[in-house]
Amino acid sequence: MGWGDLGVFGEPSKETPNLDQMASEGMLFLDFYTANPLCSPSRAALLTGRLPVRNGFYTTNGHARNAYTPQDIVGGIPDSELLLPELLKKAGYINKIIGKWHLGHRPQFHPLKHGFDEWFGSPNCHFGPYDNTERPNIPVYRDWEMIGRYYEDFKIDLKTGEANLTQLYLQEALDFISKQQASQHFFLYWAIDATHAPVYASKQFLGTSQRGLYGDAVREIDDSIGKILKHLQQLGISQNTFVFFTSDNGAALISAPKQGGSNGPFLCGKQTTFEGGMREPAIAWWPGHIPAGGVSHQLGSVMDLFTTSLSLAGLQPPSDRQIDGIDLLPVILQGKLIDRPIFYYRGNELMAVRAGLYKAHYWTWSNSWEEHSKGIDFCPGQNVSGVTTHTQEEHTYLPLLFHLGRDPGEKYPLSFASEEYQRAMGTISALLQQHKDTLVPGQPQLNVCDRAVMNWSPPGCEKLGKCLKAPESAPQKCSWPH
Amino acid sequence: MGWGDLGVFGEPSKETPNLDQMASEGMLFLDFYTANPLCSPSRAALLTGRLPVRNGFYTTNGHARNAYTPQDIVGGIPDSELLLPELLKKAGYINKIIGKWHLGHRPQFHPLKHGFDEWFGSPNCHFGPYDNTERPNIPVYRDWEMIGRYYEDFKIDLKTGEANLTQLYLQEALDFISKQQASQHFFLYWAIDATHAPVYASKQFLGTSQRGLYGDAVREIDDSIGKILKHLQQLGISQNTFVFFTSDNGAALISAPKQGGSNGPFLCGKQTTFEGGMREPAIAWWPGHIPAGGVSHQLGSVMDLFTTSLSLAGLQPPSDRQIDGIDLLPVILQGKLIDRPIFYYRGNELMAVRAGLYKAHYWTWSNSWEEHSKGIDFCPGQNVSGVTTHTQEEHTYLPLLFHLGRDPGEKYPLSFASEEYQRAMGTISALLQQHKDTLVPGQPQLNVCDRAVMNWSPPGCEKLGKCLKAPESAPQKCSWPH
Repeated sequence: MGWGDLGVFGEPSKETPNLDQMASEGMLFLDFYTANPLCSPSRAALLTGRLPVRNGFYTTNGHARNAYTPQDIVGGIPDSELLLPELLKKAGYINKIIGKWHLGHRPQFHPLKHGFDEWFGSPNCHFGPYDNTERPNIPVYRDWEMIGRYYEDFKIDLKTGEANLTQLYLQEALDFISKQQASQHFFLYWAIDATHAPVYASKQFLGTSQRGLYGDAVREIDDSIGKILKHLQQLGISQNTFVFFTSDNGAALISAPKQGGSNGPFLCGKQTTFEGGMREPAIAWWPGHIPAGGVSHQLGSVMDLFTTSLSLAGLQPPSDRQIDGIDLLPVILQGKLIDRPIFYYRGNELMAVRAGLYKAHYWTWSNSWEEHSKGIDFCPGQNVSGVTTHTQEEHTYLPLLFHLGRDPGEKYPLSFASEEYQRAMGTISALLQQHKDTLVPGQPQLNVCDRAVMNWSPPGCEKLGKCLKAPESAPQKCSWPH
Repeated sequence: MGWGDLGVFGEPSKETPNLDQMASEGMLFLDFYTANPLCSPSRAALLTGRLPVRNGFYTTNGHARNAYTPQDIVGGIPDSELLLPELLKKAGYINKIIGKWHLGHRPQFHPLKHGFDEWFGSPNCHFGPYDNTERPNIPVYRDWEMIGRYYEDFKIDLKTGEANLTQLYLQEALDFISKQQASQHFFLYWAIDATHAPVYASKQFLGTSQRGLYGDAVREIDDSIGKILKHLQQLGISQNTFVFFTSDNGAALISAPKQGGSNGPFLCGKQTTFEGGMREPAIAWWPGHIPAGGVSHQLGSVMDLFTTSLSLAGLQPPSDRQIDGIDLLPVILQGKLIDRPIFYYRGNELMAVRAGLYKAHYWTWSNSWEEHSKGIDFCPGQNVSGVTTHTQEEHTYLPLLFHLGRDPGEKYPLSFASEEYQRAMGTISALLQQHKDTLVPGQPQLNVCDRAVMNWSPPGCEKLGKCLKAPESAPQKCSWPH
């Protein structure tokens, strides 16, 4: 989902009354970012509070390439990483993930081995349907074992766009919350697949949006979040429950117009380190604690949810490693502004840095000419000369600098000769140097692929008669074209 | 000002708390349009309830050219046109215009000859400073006579961007309202110059916006509107006063980044018939009558303000001519939706038609290659192949069709072969035919220019010693490059 997909962020159809109300009862973050313009690394960053380049969710197979966890990926979240649920356990929390895990699907990466107590959802994206010969369909797990596969037991009708997955995930969330109620601290990571392509919605939402199928999916998510918040209120625990809504990357404009969302006035979309790829809708909600109708310009990150959640639980972040997330509670509860930069990574490369309202691009790239000529376009209808480049352009010695207040669309680089450029780059260069000096990259997890590791025979498959035969192992470098 | 310039419409700096609150207390129009992507024709349409092609505010000097009322224009609003204040007079209203008139500056076009009782403002844009030899500075009028000139008596500091004009116009509005109070029906047309380039703001607002000088101007307007609404409340007449906020064209992206605003997710800006040029921010406010927090998808137009205002005053629109505006009261008070198309004119050409969520382009043009090569760009950073064309492209026989719900940015024309295309074009073609069949174009007023008619010696100049000598009359065809 993109920054511009919510009514409160200016989507012209204004079809998200529940999220808009969540914002009016809570705090809206206008300058909130993901840690990576792609799903897996973003989710790894959220759960570890660390940049993908530290927690291993990146590739060195190519320069500045986006990588994630398709079925044939060998890697996953390393045991050495401490995930939010692992830490919350120490404070007596029960932890559940509903939806897409995406941090590796081999046994050692299972979410219940990384701090979660319960899981209902899938390890990978709901791509398919596959033939179960060349490639197995993606399994859906309940806790330790699979209970079926997408397209087989969990229907997704690609023709009509109908699938009731979001309803299943909603019901699971409501049930989980009901069970915990006031007696038990809980952490619910509601990490649904929608609005990822192939886009789907339940029958009751199909055709209800002005925006087509994508809008139907957004409406269903909006409705679900409304129901979750209402459930908290009806159980009388809303004042004890901190809720945060955000997305894992910008809208995938490549799927537009039929399945693509909106990044509002921002440049490009998912896969890129322009604002459209990394600035996210974000809302904090905690009635009785967060002043209603608040708006914050705090530069925030999904990684802050790690540190903030620990803070809420009375825990300190780990001190034996670099944590990139900061505690947002002073921002949320007291309206403070904390000075901190945003680092825009694409794979192994730091592409850009934001400090205050200035953003410096050290590298620019939309995607290659080769991919572009095949119709893969991350910036459809947008073309900023020298900025949305189709070759990887280095600007290390003279970064392209934008003022995101005057120019949120990143269309007008500041003059290199201006005093403003010199002043802003002074600040940003120092931040960059400090970041690079202390950076210890993690072992890259997204380099090796092997068809043998696909979801052929997930645990539980034998009970269902759904075990498939894996091919011979043939590890190779994954191909990451973007 | 553009659709995307308000916080409530998704401007990422969210610096319009008063307008945002006005929306939360009133009704937000998401699909509201001007009648022309340029100032003069738009304002003529608002005050007559008629398309510029009917009321004469267009040119036939070239095909599909935008025209307005610079100083050397010979034409203006014809006597035969009935303006809103002329009609409101019959219901006992006192009418005032504050700010830019823009419907002609020669004596016969004076606003007090067209229904207004009072005027404080200027006949033309605040361009300048001029040398008073080649070209006089623009006069500022109080009622019948000029009381000074821009840059001379009404300072605009182009270097610092400082000018207190909006404050003067605000004070004038507050005073006028105070004087009428409960005893007198009044119509106030607060038609300020800001945010038109050269952009300015008062000292207290300079440097206060994240968005630079343009944002300072927006903040000053926002603050002023907050003060006007509060004033109505303090006088106890807010429940008897209907207030409507809108703009006369999309943000002028040609003035970006220093002086240009935002059209949010829409394509291009001022001067064009893409959504960015003609979709406007719009808010209706009438406490106790309009349900708070309403949102409407009614296709609306500035011309509707004519008919709606008459309706509020218990008057019927003139029956001896075609009126394009409709009465929005059923929409505003009862939440109804009225089926009606939007016609997008550029000069003498109907460029596009919207019906429901479909928009058909019969002609596309951003601006000429010649102008574009001089750096004049109405769509900076945007380039939709075959749509943002630099030659006037005719699509009369096979219009480009967009679905504005799925594709508000007009990036993906529907397939000509699709059933959806056929169905939607069936509807639109019929509307177009009906429109063309009944259209009686007015005498074009914006064809002839003459340096002799400039504001050399406006009434009252002699008292101020500010009369200038006009050159010999030399009428010629005005040059309209866009």
